[in-house]
Amino acid sequence: MIQVGLLFSGGKDSALAAILLEPVEAVTLVTGTFGITEDWRVAKAAADSLGLPFERLELDRSVAESAAEQILADGYPRVGIQLVHEHALERAAEAEFDAIADGTRRDDRTPTVDRSLARSLEDRHGVEYIAPLRGLGRRTVDRLVGEHLEVVTGPSESIERADYEGELRALLGPEATDSLFPAHEQSRVVGRADS
Amino acid sequence: MIQVGLLFSGGKDSALAAILLEPVEAVTLVTGTFGITEDWRVAKAAADSLGLPFERLELDRSVAESAAEQILADGYPRVGIQLVHEHALERAAEAEFDAIADGTRRDDRTPTVDRSLARSLEDRHGVEYIAPLRGLGRRTVDRLVGEHLEVVTGPSESIERADYEGELRALLGPEATDSLFPAHEQSRVVGRADS
Repeated sequence: MIQVGLLFSGGKDSALAAILLEPVEAVTLVTGTFGITEDWRVAKAAADSLGLPFERLELDRSVAESAAEQILADGYPRVGIQLVHEHALERAAEAEFDAIADGTRRDDRTPTVDRSLARSLEDRHGVEYIAPLRGLGRRTVDRLVGEHLEVVTGPSESIERADYEGELRALLGPEATDSLFPAHEQSRVVGRADS
Repeated sequence: MIQVGLLFSGGKDSALAAILLEPVEAVTLVTGTFGITEDWRVAKAAADSLGLPFERLELDRSVAESAAEQILADGYPRVGIQLVHEHALERAAEAEFDAIADGTRRDDRTPTVDRSLARSLEDRHGVEYIAPLRGLGRRTVDRLVGEHLEVVTGPSESIERADYEGELRALLGPEATDSLFPAHEQSRVVGRADS
């Protein structure tokens, strides 16, 4: 087994990625933070509920500022969120892990890691990049989440998570963000289904 | 757990896909045959060495004939092999499984199952399609194979397998095939590394 740092938001996708990896790798859940909010504590609590080790990953505040500007200019969050995810992967790849991983799925649009980005991360940092959900469709992911995880779900503004949205919202201020981040169904993991 | 039929050649990729799936799904290894050779018996022996259930899947001989014609016309096997793999996925999806799976990898060129083909299989047949190695690069696959499987490797003409190449070679005849199927490193699974 090698040491895998898996980017973790506290949500169901990154938690399921951990469930699928843990039989074959030593998984540490890793949550990026710009130091803007304490949202990372939500991910730590979710990691504790799964019984998996947790590490906080310091991200560069200037990337949050660039992403916020991008989102304001675009009027939607997709490109800015992708910027932040790529930065978090770079930071995780620079850390002490043999491999990095995330919860990106086959049917996701954002964030996404295509083959050329995956190979670039691997070649530049001498790590493996593993995307356990990349070959799974939405129905498979939802079924496996139901079989393995206890989650709370609800509209995005009511579910505390440690995805990048919370810190970017805090940076942008409350007046700008409701139109920029449309409400969507969100999830937070509170344990294993069989625990 | 649901019943997953995983297309299996006896080689390391499809065997590793089974190793990754078996903690969360009920996996049956499924080997397609056109009835041209008895190569499927090689896959059955490999499945037995892994301790996993095995089923033979009858393929349509006319597809082998189309693929052979395609390979002759192209001068290389890629498009013909892709044709056969897609046919095998269709046949597996028509069988009694809740999900079908294969050993296609991130860095593979052939066969490959892109997102639109995956969704089309799922929607038309009411099954899930799962590609456990789709988010893994070559280095990760090779490492996990070394950790979990005993394999014999060698040039493709010396390693018995139940991939589509054997039956297509038999159909094409010996004089045509050496130039059409360039020799490449091949593997056959003979057990688990920890068994």
